[in-house]
Amino acid sequence: MNPKITTELLKQLRQVMKNPKHVQEPVQAYIVPSGDAHQSEYIAPCDCRRAFISGFDGSAGTAIITEQHAAMWTDGRYFLQAAQQMDNNWTLMKMGLKDTPTQEDWLVSVLPEGSKVGVDPFIIPADQWKRMSKVLRSAGHDLVPVKENLIDTIWTDCPQRPCKPLIMLDLSYTGVSWRDKIVALRSKMAERKVMWFVVTALDEVAWLFNLRGSDVEYNPVFFAYAVIGMNTIRLFIDGDRMMDPAVREHLQLDSTLEPEFKIQVMPYGSILSELQAVGAGLSHKEKVWLSDKASYALTEAIPKAYRYLTPYTPICIAKAVKNASETEGMRRAHIKDAVALCELFNWLENEVPKGTVTEIIAADKAEEFRSQQKDFVELSFATISSTGPNGAIIHYKPVPETNRTLSVNEIYLLDSGAQYKDGTTDVTRTMHFGTPSAYEKECFTYVLKGHIAVSAAIFPNGTKGHLLDSFARSALWDCGLDYLHGTGHGVGSFLNVHEGPCGISYKTFADEPLEAGMIVSDEPGYYEDGSFGIRIENVVLVIPAETKYNFKNRGSLTFEPLTLVPIQTKMIDVNLLTQKECDWVNDYHQKCREVVGAELERQGRHEALRWLIRETEPLVPVQ
Amino acid sequence: MNPKITTELLKQLRQVMKNPKHVQEPVQAYIVPSGDAHQSEYIAPCDCRRAFISGFDGSAGTAIITEQHAAMWTDGRYFLQAAQQMDNNWTLMKMGLKDTPTQEDWLVSVLPEGSKVGVDPFIIPADQWKRMSKVLRSAGHDLVPVKENLIDTIWTDCPQRPCKPLIMLDLSYTGVSWRDKIVALRSKMAERKVMWFVVTALDEVAWLFNLRGSDVEYNPVFFAYAVIGMNTIRLFIDGDRMMDPAVREHLQLDSTLEPEFKIQVMPYGSILSELQAVGAGLSHKEKVWLSDKASYALTEAIPKAYRYLTPYTPICIAKAVKNASETEGMRRAHIKDAVALCELFNWLENEVPKGTVTEIIAADKAEEFRSQQKDFVELSFATISSTGPNGAIIHYKPVPETNRTLSVNEIYLLDSGAQYKDGTTDVTRTMHFGTPSAYEKECFTYVLKGHIAVSAAIFPNGTKGHLLDSFARSALWDCGLDYLHGTGHGVGSFLNVHEGPCGISYKTFADEPLEAGMIVSDEPGYYEDGSFGIRIENVVLVIPAETKYNFKNRGSLTFEPLTLVPIQTKMIDVNLLTQKECDWVNDYHQKCREVVGAELERQGRHEALRWLIRETEPLVPVQ
Repeated sequence: MNPKITTELLKQLRQVMKNPKHVQEPVQAYIVPSGDAHQSEYIAPCDCRRAFISGFDGSAGTAIITEQHAAMWTDGRYFLQAAQQMDNNWTLMKMGLKDTPTQEDWLVSVLPEGSKVGVDPFIIPADQWKRMSKVLRSAGHDLVPVKENLIDTIWTDCPQRPCKPLIMLDLSYTGVSWRDKIVALRSKMAERKVMWFVVTALDEVAWLFNLRGSDVEYNPVFFAYAVIGMNTIRLFIDGDRMMDPAVREHLQLDSTLEPEFKIQVMPYGSILSELQAVGAGLSHKEKVWLSDKASYALTEAIPKAYRYLTPYTPICIAKAVKNASETEGMRRAHIKDAVALCELFNWLENEVPKGTVTEIIAADKAEEFRSQQKDFVELSFATISSTGPNGAIIHYKPVPETNRTLSVNEIYLLDSGAQYKDGTTDVTRTMHFGTPSAYEKECFTYVLKGHIAVSAAIFPNGTKGHLLDSFARSALWDCGLDYLHGTGHGVGSFLNVHEGPCGISYKTFADEPLEAGMIVSDEPGYYEDGSFGIRIENVVLVIPAETKYNFKNRGSLTFEPLTLVPIQTKMIDVNLLTQKECDWVNDYHQKCREVVGAELERQGRHEALRWLIRETEPLVPVQ
Repeated sequence: MNPKITTELLKQLRQVMKNPKHVQEPVQAYIVPSGDAHQSEYIAPCDCRRAFISGFDGSAGTAIITEQHAAMWTDGRYFLQAAQQMDNNWTLMKMGLKDTPTQEDWLVSVLPEGSKVGVDPFIIPADQWKRMSKVLRSAGHDLVPVKENLIDTIWTDCPQRPCKPLIMLDLSYTGVSWRDKIVALRSKMAERKVMWFVVTALDEVAWLFNLRGSDVEYNPVFFAYAVIGMNTIRLFIDGDRMMDPAVREHLQLDSTLEPEFKIQVMPYGSILSELQAVGAGLSHKEKVWLSDKASYALTEAIPKAYRYLTPYTPICIAKAVKNASETEGMRRAHIKDAVALCELFNWLENEVPKGTVTEIIAADKAEEFRSQQKDFVELSFATISSTGPNGAIIHYKPVPETNRTLSVNEIYLLDSGAQYKDGTTDVTRTMHFGTPSAYEKECFTYVLKGHIAVSAAIFPNGTKGHLLDSFARSALWDCGLDYLHGTGHGVGSFLNVHEGPCGISYKTFADEPLEAGMIVSDEPGYYEDGSFGIRIENVVLVIPAETKYNFKNRGSLTFEPLTLVPIQTKMIDVNLLTQKECDWVNDYHQKCREVVGAELERQGRHEALRWLIRETEPLVPVQ
């Protein structure tokens, strides 16, 4: 990897930082965050401004450029990559290390007195602005919004913002019409006594209107905002997408509707001025509900006294609890996904010994098998196809420089998933195509015990996911082992593969309590730098649990695996399993065999079916 | 229980709220918090102002009096008690219920526009002031400090602030001299670049100077503040306590010392003016370190730019990690405590069938046996001695009105502890003196499984206690059961029985990571309203654990029980235990028999020794 040469770009940027054509007053520092105006995890090429200015294209990082310095903050996943992709103009700020200053502290230490620090108010979340602005102000500086994005002014070949056609989801997929979603949202608004709700996250807009898009890779979303009033609906969206008769029909744009369901379509770029108009027209006690992660620009459009900010929006919470149609769709999607993976693993078992299968070839083959399944749309994230030492790099994605050949001597880890029109998948399996060592089996078995401990856990209604995280680690901890990532994340329904507001992690973020219908991943792992990586991941559905007693009538919950792909029994040291764990594996494999077997049969995939039957032979517990 | 008649008192209070002799300007509401000026959990009689004005004397509650209303906020533990103790002048605000307004919201709803809300700035913690003041200000009101405590102005027979003699602890108890503690504190101050540290919590003052007192029941502390500079030590304390030659010798008040170790003794009441003088004399970058729970009055004495506030002070953290002398002392204290409890339980076994032992008699007997032990000082909290349905009241303390007779038909729960000069104890045992039902045994065994799961847990260095909480609940959850309190709290070394900064709870408060030398309780339970309560509590020491592997060289930790009192095997359903759990119980009882047996032998307590031997017979696991 050669670093990007940024000398000229930085020079240009420093000029526009002082140029009255672009800034109201010169700024002594300019912040380039990672995100887009919707605080998306995955962003479109036109929003990769930080990668453009620095060369560093990891998923997390913030660049700050002053007259003298250019610095990049990123976390442990990206220290190596950032160091390789950036030239000498850049200082790498390793977040999480003790001596690394925060962005604010660093700014205070390098800036001349009374400096202005500029940032695009559309890109910075309001909560972050608040934190940063406070520190800077107390040191005598000012954080100032720069309306024109300064990177865009020097990015001459910046790609266009994507504006791809929309996909309409009918009731058979969504279970609830957009009208009913609006009704439910308005009732939440009434409960909190707010008059307006501003939808800023792309997956929330998509979910609300039962629409999907492909403006961003892996996430089936489209660039749009919405502002929902008690009697009005405004959708801010660009392009001819609203010319499509099917879209017009879906949104009933040309029907005679009650006025409160009439959607006013407006240009994407007019959100700020429209919101400012809303803000200016508010009277006593009329509040506007926004996510506290919404951009500073949109948040500021509403006078402070009228803002109602919450970490999770009512849409985020409603979206997380899947209804029967969505759950059924997710089940179907996972069966199709399992079919594809049975095909893949059968193929790998035959091909790997020949020494011709690389990580990239295996990833491509996985995509090929998935794309043969009904309603396949695209992958749900970049496939992690890694063998041997590459498996220990948790966010690895094979590229030609690192591409390794699969062999019968190394562990292979595949973390992959797809978007189907009926659901989103995300599954990790760790396989050995030869004979695993006793140590590899031991580690795999501890990870499996952790996976089962979460999957089979029974817990009271209202429990937050972070209270389950230690269950996944207990078997590893007993032997002095651990893994340095969370155990699970929320999964969307033909939407983002990572979504809030629930998850399973030792990091005590403000997760919402788990409830029946939520869908999360269960993915403990173990990684040994330089040798191998192990992870076992299923997507699981929160379901009610039957228990002997029922304390305070609270009811209990547990998980049902939606992912139905065999867990390689060759990797299991049966001696380390309890009878209960052994039963769990056998029951799980029995279900894989029945459910996925029937679908393989239906699709006439006989060789993969034979593989499935072989791989789901019951474990025989040691007496 | 008859309610306190408060009509006259409230009338008087409302008069002083408007009387310019007592308030700078009239206040329309007056807040009476629970605490004292040190944010103590246990308070002296002179600080029970909220109980005086309302009649409600539970450990938690805030009263607010306006011209028209008097309202009391308290939590679920005290709904019944508060309702019984307060007359019709009072409205009970049940915290935790959905429809109960916060104090701020209630004030906003009842106050006339532009009201002043008064509070004693010494009693309200700074973080609470900040929160409250913000809400009131945004609604057009003002939170104002009222220097004179308005309750004190009408409390004609207010008891004097206690000022009892001090106890000096020598090195054999503390392991570290107060001089070395000051040196260590100053090095922490230097690390954070602060020039001053203000010690406001009573247990922190006591720990720092290796002194103990008895100004507050159960907590061996004394009323004092300290202000530590890089070259000065100021101790704010009243009474002739500093006349005691032994105290003078202990603090080296009359020795020729390096100036930086010379303690300046000042009146308790002069803390504010002295701190204001410190605040006024600060120059560029000279910070003052305070707990963010310190009173508003003391926090305000330091100009905002110079404050360095943290949730836990360096003393709180240092105090939590016990050194070898403290650990040895705690071990000794727990052996003596076990001797007393063996005597008690043997006595109960003989006396309960006679039908003459009440909860109060049992509690008194426990105290009697404890007081026979060397270095016994007092109890460490009010004994919870409860049988049958009383056991389900988690914070029960027997009083004549509720006092129940122990019998062979009901479960008996005893949660008790003592202060010895070498350590603090806190132990809960649940016993049956007849034949427990299968259901009682089943519930007891789930609680035991949870107790063992925490006690035997192995976890990485740096793990926070809240990550272990679910281990304690897992066996209960599996059957749909649970308990509605945390699993453990920090325990002081001849200090407060509840101390920070560590604990084991589902509430994700900002606990500090567990480290070797910390001491916490492990006390899961199960409570069935109206029938019985079960709790099994040991005090446990965090110790390094030997593990097969050592991921990232982090090292592992586990717990060693300090409490060595048999767990009644009659209550255990052995069928529900795994082999590992069975082994744990047998190993634990073997240790009780050896260690406590030797001490019973030494003290010539032969009958209790025979009881111990009977009660520590190994469980025979079912094959």
